Amino acid sequence: MNEAARTLKEIVDMFGGELRGDGAIHVESIASLKEATPRQISFLANPKYRNQLPTTKAAAVIVDEQSAADCPGAVIVTPHPYMYFARLSRWLAPRRPMRSGRHPTAIVEGLVPESAQVGPYAWIGPGARVGEDVVIGPYCHVGEESYIGDDCRLYANVTVYHNCHIGKRALIHAGAVIGADGFGFARHPQGQWEKIAQNGRVVIGDDVEIGANTCIDRGAIGDTVIGDGVKLDNLIQVGHNVHVGEHCAFAGCVGVAGSSIIGDRCTIAGGAVVLGHLTLAADVNVSAATLVTKPIGEAGVYTGAPPFMPHGEWLRNFSHLRQLDAMADRIRRLEKQLEEMTEKGS
Amino acid sequence: MNEAARTLKEIVDMFGGELRGDGAIHVESIASLKEATPRQISFLANPKYRNQLPTTKAAAVIVDEQSAADCPGAVIVTPHPYMYFARLSRWLAPRRPMRSGRHPTAIVEGLVPESAQVGPYAWIGPGARVGEDVVIGPYCHVGEESYIGDDCRLYANVTVYHNCHIGKRALIHAGAVIGADGFGFARHPQGQWEKIAQNGRVVIGDDVEIGANTCIDRGAIGDTVIGDGVKLDNLIQVGHNVHVGEHCAFAGCVGVAGSSIIGDRCTIAGGAVVLGHLTLAADVNVSAATLVTKPIGEAGVYTGAPPFMPHGEWLRNFSHLRQLDAMADRIRRLEKQLEEMTEKGS
Amino acid sequence: MNEAARTLKEIVDMFGGELRGDGAIHVESIASLKEATPRQISFLANPKYRNQLPTTKAAAVIVDEQSAADCPGAVIVTPHPYMYFARLSRWLAPRRPMRSGRHPTAIVEGLVPESAQVGPYAWIGPGARVGEDVVIGPYCHVGEESYIGDDCRLYANVTVYHNCHIGKRALIHAGAVIGADGFGFARHPQGQWEKIAQNGRVVIGDDVEIGANTCIDRGAIGDTVIGDGVKLDNLIQVGHNVHVGEHCAFAGCVGVAGSSIIGDRCTIAGGAVVLGHLTLAADVNVSAATLVTKPIGEAGVYTGAPPFMPHGEWLRNFSHLRQLDAMADRIRRLEKQLEEMTEKGS
Repeated sequence: MNEAARTLKEIVDMFGGELRGDGAIHVESIASLKEATPRQISFLANPKYRNQLPTTKAAAVIVDEQSAADCPGAVIVTPHPYMYFARLSRWLAPRRPMRSGRHPTAIVEGLVPESAQVGPYAWIGPGARVGEDVVIGPYCHVGEESYIGDDCRLYANVTVYHNCHIGKRALIHAGAVIGADGFGFARHPQGQWEKIAQNGRVVIGDDVEIGANTCIDRGAIGDTVIGDGVKLDNLIQVGHNVHVGEHCAFAGCVGVAGSSIIGDRCTIAGGAVVLGHLTLAADVNVSAATLVTKPIGEAGVYTGAPPFMPHGEWLRNFSHLRQLDAMADRIRRLEKQLEEMTEKGS
Repeated sequence: MNEAARTLKEIVDMFGGELRGDGAIHVESIASLKEATPRQISFLANPKYRNQLPTTKAAAVIVDEQSAADCPGAVIVTPHPYMYFARLSRWLAPRRPMRSGRHPTAIVEGLVPESAQVGPYAWIGPGARVGEDVVIGPYCHVGEESYIGDDCRLYANVTVYHNCHIGKRALIHAGAVIGADGFGFARHPQGQWEKIAQNGRVVIGDDVEIGANTCIDRGAIGDTVIGDGVKLDNLIQVGHNVHVGEHCAFAGCVGVAGSSIIGDRCTIAGGAVVLGHLTLAADVNVSAATLVTKPIGEAGVYTGAPPFMPHGEWLRNFSHLRQLDAMADRIRRLEKQLEEMTEKGS
Repeated sequence: MNEAARTLKEIVDMFGGELRGDGAIHVESIASLKEATPRQISFLANPKYRNQLPTTKAAAVIVDEQSAADCPGAVIVTPHPYMYFARLSRWLAPRRPMRSGRHPTAIVEGLVPESAQVGPYAWIGPGARVGEDVVIGPYCHVGEESYIGDDCRLYANVTVYHNCHIGKRALIHAGAVIGADGFGFARHPQGQWEKIAQNGRVVIGDDVEIGANTCIDRGAIGDTVIGDGVKLDNLIQVGHNVHVGEHCAFAGCVGVAGSSIIGDRCTIAGGAVVLGHLTLAADVNVSAATLVTKPIGEAGVYTGAPPFMPHGEWLRNFSHLRQLDAMADRIRRLEKQLEEMTEKGS
């Protein structure tokens, strides 16, 4: 049996919920209702899968009260099955063996406590400090005077430039770049660009996750700031002096240009772009592939991406976008003409 | 003479086609019709360059039957000149000197056969396995229990997380990240995010090419799957549990969100985004910068990006997008009014 | 006092401008008007901040003649305050301590002069050449036969493939990939892709800046060319055989597809995509998130991104995009009907 296996009793002891069934049943991992085996636990979070409950082979299912009766076997009843699943998923995760201590090839010039792990070929630069129980992966570079908080984990190839600050429990995926220069230039009348030194920092709060190959630029004057609990997916660009409020989540390929201020708990869906120097209120949700060109003062969902359609339809419909103004004129003219006719007629 | 030089006879012996001209002519490399020198071979694949045939200085030209007569010198006649060019381009490529064996700085904890090359500072983790004739570049990390198939080549700085599977003959460019955590969180009522463990794998078929800094996330429950023959350009994001069918090709900066299923032989052009949990049929072609928000059940070309225009025209036209609904109302009202007048008049 | 501190007299001796105030005043760094302390200098470049002049605590302010009288303390008067600020920002930047020479873990197989620094675990491949005073960061790989010009700086994890050329004074940020294969394949009738060897180079001019995780692919036949003075932000994709003219600037997440030719001094704003095989004239400015599908023959600003709006409004308005063609038809019919009625009536 998988060493991560747990009994249902252990699970409810740990996470609560009401167990209806045999507490001695062991489960090793989590699976979807459709694919679960009798060694696995499943969950129902999305009502559209409710019809899969009667036939699931899962050893047990995490459900809310309304759906509990549909399950053929053991259930754990909770008002928030998806949250329960999230917590359980981490507990049941196979523990990755960790090598303790510093790899002999790691170069440690800064301060690294005994409890931290430093992987092959990592380089902790002079003046850098790393907290307790931090895991620094291979080829990671922590630049001069930068700080990595307790319990952070940096996967492979993460670059943290000099003088940046990362709070506790950050999870930073491979290839992420924290603290590269912001994109700031003054333009000569003849078109050449004169670089503006980027002397600010990146300051990241606690409990932040940063996806693979995501980039967060350092401030020009002042800092780029990422609030507590922020989750950033892969391949995201955060420009210099941006402030991202607490518990925001940005999906893949999002770009936020310099000096914009994103309120707490905002979500930005995949591929959306927020222009620079804009302020977004708290609890704003930007839809996928939307370009935000103006400040948003009120919470709500904002959207701008056009619908897609078969190419032939698109050709017919979207060609009119070039004549929208002319179409509006023609409507006005028709209205006026009709009005005149009506007046004449009356 | 370049050691890669070949005679026209050697070429047709290797790749077929009908040679009309002197088989003893040597060519060293391929060039466009316009820029080719007498030591180079060229090709005509796009009819718009046909007018360059009479004046090309190329030693020989790869053409189809219809265009053969327009060439001043030797020709190789084939029904598929572009495919012929593709194959020949690899054969004539200057062979890059390869150092054999393992660099002394490589850390090999997994299983690596004699025939494989492992570059400076690469790290093959414990339990990882690498196939025959694989080339692992500098700073590449192959995580625990991952598998790299025969004849794969990983360029520099490629990160393969633990427990992933890559088929034969993959070509993976610098900075690519395979198997980082998918972006999965449950949300607290107060807005915080609870991480869902990402316990699935990435499973990649044979003959796949993955571009620089492209990211393919591991599955949450179950695997992310990339089919045989798939070609991914640079800076692409493939979310957790996505399935990409065989022989798909995605251009740069594409994003596919979690759990979407892309059919065989689909193409997605640059900057397009496919939302999550969608199924696309086989042979779907998504145009550049298009947002796919719904499943696509039929093969065909699908488009959604608006046309661009001079900024002043855009201002005039696109401002009406905010009043499209009002415009539609006004048209309806006009139609009704006219109808009433016509009825009255009749 | 910060060792980078300078007197106002030293500043005007270095950069010109007319000092009105005490030349002995020391300043250590630059700050915004609002946040500056008496140890800092500020500047006014954007007229909307003019009202902050009377209350700034800055030791001195860089302004133009019109605004000089509004400042409470010392001023440096110049016709171009923003350009002055840019230059001064670099001069006042805290000097990062540099370790000289080669780190003992660096692998140098090519030619590297005494004046160059090579960081931990960097690998300068066989036949590569590096100019005077170059700084190569950790985990950077310079491929075989590639050239890095004088005074370049490569941050961490930069990959330069074989046979590329980078001019003087380039600044290349972490994770950038120069010279990966372009995305070129011929398609079999059954849908498989046949790779076209990418045998060209990347040739980069002088004074170029390349952002973090940005990718510039090598040419297929012939080279990809980046002109002098070009500035590229993070996460940009430049396809094979693209030519980027002098002094262009591309913001984050831009993609330029293969073989396009961008004229001198063009700017492309964040998230915009330029399709392949297009020519853009000099001095073209492409707006954010715009898809360029056709050549642009004249200088000017070009835009194509639709406006965003609250989701409910978007639903109402954008659903009509699918019926734009039908709306145009209805307008034409109304016009015809009205015309007939008018004729009949007259």
